[in-house]
Amino acid sequence: MTSTALYVLPTAHPADTSGATALGVHTPSDVVAIVGKTEGNGCVNDFSRTLSTLAWEPLLPPSAVTVFSGGTEGVLSPHVNVFVRDDRHHDGHDRGLVTAAGRSRILDPVEVGRDAQVDAVADAVAALMDEVGVTAEDVHMVLVKCPLLTSDKVAALHASGQTPVTTDTYESMGHSRAASALGIAVALGEATRAEALQALAGEREDTWSARASASAGAELEDCHILLVAESRAVANPLRAAHTAMKDALDIGALTALLADIEKQGGSVRQIFAKAEADPRGSIRGRRHTMLTDSDINSTRHARAAVGGLIAALVGDAAVYVSGGAEHQGPAGGGSVTVIYEVPATKEIAE
Amino acid sequence: MTSTALYVLPTAHPADTSGATALGVHTPSDVVAIVGKTEGNGCVNDFSRTLSTLAWEPLLPPSAVTVFSGGTEGVLSPHVNVFVRDDRHHDGHDRGLVTAAGRSRILDPVEVGRDAQVDAVADAVAALMDEVGVTAEDVHMVLVKCPLLTSDKVAALHASGQTPVTTDTYESMGHSRAASALGIAVALGEATRAEALQALAGEREDTWSARASASAGAELEDCHILLVAESRAVANPLRAAHTAMKDALDIGALTALLADIEKQGGSVRQIFAKAEADPRGSIRGRRHTMLTDSDINSTRHARAAVGGLIAALVGDAAVYVSGGAEHQGPAGGGSVTVIYEVPATKEIAE
Amino acid sequence: MTSTALYVLPTAHPADTSGATALGVHTPSDVVAIVGKTEGNGCVNDFSRTLSTLAWEPLLPPSAVTVFSGGTEGVLSPHVNVFVRDDRHHDGHDRGLVTAAGRSRILDPVEVGRDAQVDAVADAVAALMDEVGVTAEDVHMVLVKCPLLTSDKVAALHASGQTPVTTDTYESMGHSRAASALGIAVALGEATRAEALQALAGEREDTWSARASASAGAELEDCHILLVAESRAVANPLRAAHTAMKDALDIGALTALLADIEKQGGSVRQIFAKAEADPRGSIRGRRHTMLTDSDINSTRHARAAVGGLIAALVGDAAVYVSGGAEHQGPAGGGSVTVIYEVPATKEIAE
Amino acid sequence: MTSTALYVLPTAHPADTSGATALGVHTPSDVVAIVGKTEGNGCVNDFSRTLSTLAWEPLLPPSAVTVFSGGTEGVLSPHVNVFVRDDRHHDGHDRGLVTAAGRSRILDPVEVGRDAQVDAVADAVAALMDEVGVTAEDVHMVLVKCPLLTSDKVAALHASGQTPVTTDTYESMGHSRAASALGIAVALGEATRAEALQALAGEREDTWSARASASAGAELEDCHILLVAESRAVANPLRAAHTAMKDALDIGALTALLADIEKQGGSVRQIFAKAEADPRGSIRGRRHTMLTDSDINSTRHARAAVGGLIAALVGDAAVYVSGGAEHQGPAGGGSVTVIYEVPATKEIAE
Repeated sequence: MTSTALYVLPTAHPADTSGATALGVHTPSDVVAIVGKTEGNGCVNDFSRTLSTLAWEPLLPPSAVTVFSGGTEGVLSPHVNVFVRDDRHHDGHDRGLVTAAGRSRILDPVEVGRDAQVDAVADAVAALMDEVGVTAEDVHMVLVKCPLLTSDKVAALHASGQTPVTTDTYESMGHSRAASALGIAVALGEATRAEALQALAGEREDTWSARASASAGAELEDCHILLVAESRAVANPLRAAHTAMKDALDIGALTALLADIEKQGGSVRQIFAKAEADPRGSIRGRRHTMLTDSDINSTRHARAAVGGLIAALVGDAAVYVSGGAEHQGPAGGGSVTVIYEVPATKEIAE
Repeated sequence: MTSTALYVLPTAHPADTSGATALGVHTPSDVVAIVGKTEGNGCVNDFSRTLSTLAWEPLLPPSAVTVFSGGTEGVLSPHVNVFVRDDRHHDGHDRGLVTAAGRSRILDPVEVGRDAQVDAVADAVAALMDEVGVTAEDVHMVLVKCPLLTSDKVAALHASGQTPVTTDTYESMGHSRAASALGIAVALGEATRAEALQALAGEREDTWSARASASAGAELEDCHILLVAESRAVANPLRAAHTAMKDALDIGALTALLADIEKQGGSVRQIFAKAEADPRGSIRGRRHTMLTDSDINSTRHARAAVGGLIAALVGDAAVYVSGGAEHQGPAGGGSVTVIYEVPATKEIAE
Repeated sequence: MTSTALYVLPTAHPADTSGATALGVHTPSDVVAIVGKTEGNGCVNDFSRTLSTLAWEPLLPPSAVTVFSGGTEGVLSPHVNVFVRDDRHHDGHDRGLVTAAGRSRILDPVEVGRDAQVDAVADAVAALMDEVGVTAEDVHMVLVKCPLLTSDKVAALHASGQTPVTTDTYESMGHSRAASALGIAVALGEATRAEALQALAGEREDTWSARASASAGAELEDCHILLVAESRAVANPLRAAHTAMKDALDIGALTALLADIEKQGGSVRQIFAKAEADPRGSIRGRRHTMLTDSDINSTRHARAAVGGLIAALVGDAAVYVSGGAEHQGPAGGGSVTVIYEVPATKEIAE
Repeated sequence: MTSTALYVLPTAHPADTSGATALGVHTPSDVVAIVGKTEGNGCVNDFSRTLSTLAWEPLLPPSAVTVFSGGTEGVLSPHVNVFVRDDRHHDGHDRGLVTAAGRSRILDPVEVGRDAQVDAVADAVAALMDEVGVTAEDVHMVLVKCPLLTSDKVAALHASGQTPVTTDTYESMGHSRAASALGIAVALGEATRAEALQALAGEREDTWSARASASAGAELEDCHILLVAESRAVANPLRAAHTAMKDALDIGALTALLADIEKQGGSVRQIFAKAEADPRGSIRGRRHTMLTDSDINSTRHARAAVGGLIAALVGDAAVYVSGGAEHQGPAGGGSVTVIYEVPATKEIAE
């Protein structure tokens, strides 16, 4: 149970770790997780993620995880979200934000995007829930960074007579995200294991979690996991809420969530959203061209569009919008989690 | 003075002219202008625009112009906006939308992006205002499609000892849009000729028109121009309103305009917007990466982001968002025109 | 049996049909086939191919086919290769180049990349061999332009409960090229039907034809086919020869073929080559990055590299290098056909 | 005077420093310079270069420089060329390869691409020639890695009332390479300072050095310089030779150089070449499309094409081909340096 504070810090470039000295009363040793947007293409050969990882990891405690999501298309602004352990009791609060970070076991390349990854993530998320002492209802977001398949890995599998989930390196990212998201859904009780495996096999489209946020990268071989929940065992001003956009135009889901936060007197600290090109090739009956564009991958389009919407809604371009929302919200939509701050209340006994 | 109706029609591909048979009581011979979004890259080598032009022009009267703007990044959906002459008197209206279309003289490549283009556009817009019998205050949008410089044209200029405004073909698009926009500003009395030429020389950043919408293409050598205004000389249910987004996050400018339209009982028929990467490299203090992305040109990023916002606001992805807003709204922002329909009013004598 | 002449004509842009008036003693009505390189991305959303098709087809007889291959990466120069019927008897020649052009039946989208396409192409090629009166040994090249799957087609298949060969539009190009190439191999007796279908299923890598050249596009729904052979039934100065590059560095295959042509006193008129990224991720033990590049598709890389080599070897950038060589040469290599001209010989009785 | 050995080592990814343990009798502390090809886009936002720099620099002595050139388009294979001090006297040699590495002073962003950069590079190269004790005729290559302008730097200049050489970040790379190349030309006596400055101003196209190889990056603010020469003061088996390709098809320049090396019994160890899109838009009269391609920058095209040629000629894809050859060879061509090994000769007294 780790009471948590959040810093949202701009970065001047992917190796910019100057935020490590801008943590107020905290220090890098307090870091639970760094969740960043870096400015690469967000696809297979995105070295901005690796660069950020290489720059940050020496500064962090071994328990911390990094989740760098590439792609700041459109207005999106590169930044890091630093979740730190905040042991202070904040008066006037009867609950607060808690987080836990961990890693799955290392996945063999043949397991990427397959049942074994669903299980590994589900197990790791369940362990984190235990660790932090929350139930599924308390959880508002599980962020996972998971591996992908490179040409080298595909070739090595073939050489050993094994078959990768796909030979297309870009497509392996989607398979990996799907398996992670379904593992989260299992851990949160939103799907049975059997349903999750059916969904992974493409036989259940409507199995998804609005609290799952998965991104894939070449820079790791296990899954990095951050669990974000509310708990009455701590007292701090942060809260979380989540919803799902049903498609990329679903401003209604966002404004409803933001209105509810405003009603609580809350102020938005950060939005974490997933986005994707609708796999049916159209949105509300209008054809889109994200899946026939051979110059720009569809995740880049989706980030740019949904990022443009969300940044405008909150008036800040340093929001976390990540592409590829397989089973993270309904098809064509995506999961959304807002972390916000509420004022202290006198009525709450200290 | 051409009383005008508007059809917004989806296209299945750039050569799709099936909309020509979906004009209700009208026929292609009534067309004043086709203003379309096509699905190319919106940059120099965007052949989707040329393809649409080649497919549509044989169907249209010689007086009609085509303005195809490439780039349907993100959620944007390819479509054509067909402006047709509508000679009917619509009861219950004391005014209506009017349009006029025309061409500037052919521009020599050495003139592209230079003072001569400002003058040519200003003259042509002034002529269209005369033709349609409106004053500058009545005008809500002037759309211009203008030439760019290809490698061939740059080489030909050099061979003849002349200097193009730039040797970079992509950058020539921006120079051409700027000259067109400033020509519009002069014609609408928003800038003097001297101010416009200073602005073109980079010496006046704040000279712009919220009614200008210019896009450049390799598919033409003159400027195609469409003027959209309101007039009391006709009676139809269409109206127009315009504003400027001050930056890519300026949802407030949009919601204010839409609220005003709603107050009139109006329903949005189409939004025409320009967008651009803020030339200062940041938006509201947050660094963006559109100008350092060597894989995707900045106009593509800007269309995707602002398109994502506008499409969500109106719940329709077939909106007209065009990239490169030099002097079409403040730096980093862009011009916005909405065409909307109002109900007939009994009070208006017929 | 159509005695054939060849014109290689530069194009200033994809809609440039000025070559129609540069056919010497011939006219567009003599055209058997236009085989062109256009300057789009050569992938799914390459509208330069459609534009060229739309521009050329009205000028050609109904019997003619067009094969436009997108992608002029690197030094490659846009051009058209115009094959025309040349009824003249050229003295001093005891043989000559013959061609035949035709179309397969229209393929249903569910058939694209599947056994039915192999059969349809095999049948059509066999019919063309009959028509022109040659045997398989006489044939030096079969060029096929075949369909791909767009988002619309994938969605329509799903809606009707059918499964496309792939849901990835770019990957559908490779499946379609593979099926066409294997159909050619069957027709030329290089593989049995059973072997071809095994190869299509990914179970026979070494089944390929050095005379097959297939490219896919969204601009057609049948397969356009051009067969190029030598025949003793005609007399003209053109000859053909073919080989296979075993990988993208295989300059030896090319110089051997060119040396053989030089020995005959021949001069190269055109080279038609296929190229691809080695699917194993490396070339002669050196890792390449074409399959992990999420910004540029691998066919574009392959065209640029092999195009740079071939253009340098012949000293001319207007060569026909096409990307995606599935079963058109060994894995990582590609088919190569040279059309060349030999001088007349006095010894040959006229 | 540093007698030098060369290791050409493949890399599995940009952060792969495993080559540090593959230096035979040498260790990282012997490194004079690492000159690598990394697999980013080779343009402004190429973080693969920064990642390699960050990974390698902690392993190297402070005197060493790194020159990472992004872009392994086509067949090009990521690798590092490690130049190490080799103090051994190799019997049977009366000369050998020598190198010297250094840095210019830090350049202010306003100086990038301007006269000050020419001077700074010229001075630094001259100092290296002195240091290593060679004259200009002994020098076969000067490699420079130089800064570029990012959006941040452009904005900072504007904010302080200064004018950058260009506001286009991609174009700033070309200006910086040009200034570095002209500085080299001055230092080698191939141009006077006045001629170099005229050339930088665009008034002398024919001022260039066949021994200059410059690349730009965001990862540094000074210029990293490596000078490669032959010297009779050392004895080792390495030699160097250089030439210039007059255009991207100039296979003749390459085969002549390679033939000369073969005549000496030499075997090629590495080729360092520069390439660029011909600024006139055509090569030997054939239009190319590298300068009108808004999806792929021209330096990427040029690397792919010339890389395809050079790799095929030497049968190895791990060659160093770098894009953007302003004043490094004639317009449209590029500088070429080969490092090769010759056998020991008995006649040479030891």
